[in-house]
Amino acid sequence: MEEAIKEALKAKEKKEVPIGAVVVYQGKVIGRGHNIRETSQDATTHAELLAIKEACHYKGNWRLEECQLFVTLEPCPMCSGGIILARLESVYFGAMDPKAGTAGSLMNLLADERFNHQPYMESGILEEECGELLRTFFKELRERNKQKKRDKQAVIEKEV
Amino acid sequence: MEEAIKEALKAKEKKEVPIGAVVVYQGKVIGRGHNIRETSQDATTHAELLAIKEACHYKGNWRLEECQLFVTLEPCPMCSGGIILARLESVYFGAMDPKAGTAGSLMNLLADERFNHQPYMESGILEEECGELLRTFFKELRERNKQKKRDKQAVIEKEV
Repeated sequence: MEEAIKEALKAKEKKEVPIGAVVVYQGKVIGRGHNIRETSQDATTHAELLAIKEACHYKGNWRLEECQLFVTLEPCPMCSGGIILARLESVYFGAMDPKAGTAGSLMNLLADERFNHQPYMESGILEEECGELLRTFFKELRERNKQKKRDKQAVIEKEV
Repeated sequence: MEEAIKEALKAKEKKEVPIGAVVVYQGKVIGRGHNIRETSQDATTHAELLAIKEACHYKGNWRLEECQLFVTLEPCPMCSGGIILARLESVYFGAMDPKAGTAGSLMNLLADERFNHQPYMESGILEEECGELLRTFFKELRERNKQKKRDKQAVIEKEV
């Protein structure tokens, strides 16, 4: 999970929502990814999907049956779907996502037996650290936005 | 939808499960994709996700709010998630997917108001044609597999 947090920090440096993921095979990281939605302007560039793509490329195989995914935040529907499609052996995640998480929060796609694969799953891994990264990011974002608003107001008042 | 079917035919030529998708903006196709899971050996290379990626790239924006997606088969969880994330205005699909479809079959992620976007959705567009492509593909696949088995048996009997 520490490697996933390193990825999340890379996202933070790019002023992206700090979420990171890695895919591990036989104890080795074979896929890494961090959220780059704003940088890439591509809605599909979530940490998990990028890490899965890299791992598939590494293995030369779309099946990641003996691989583990570590991700700092509970996966969304797209990433949960990607995890099922890639047949990942197991998924370990940090913080819950009550707004869009589909590995326990809104529903649990990963445990839905109607799909043809159900990975083993554990949540709450380094939860405090993973969650704190996000809370700090959004707090700072709100403060920046407030400051912008104050600056704008000051300019208007100066002009009037 | 005819453009999506053209994409599905490209997948068929590559011996991939024939599913195709296009993203349309102001009447123009700005993203195309067909399933290339076996060719790419990447679990995430579904038709819809590839079309969404191309459309985001074309627009230079992860938001596809004024765009429509046409896809020959009901989206899976990953692609349904991608549709929500890209904020597509509407989704039109052909055949239902009773095994993994999450736009009406197993559940309806696209209409779930707990997510921050719900696209307009219509199913059954050129359903017969879209479904027939898949039925023929799987029928031929089964026949090829049966023939392989027969050939193998013939070799064994010859050797005995």
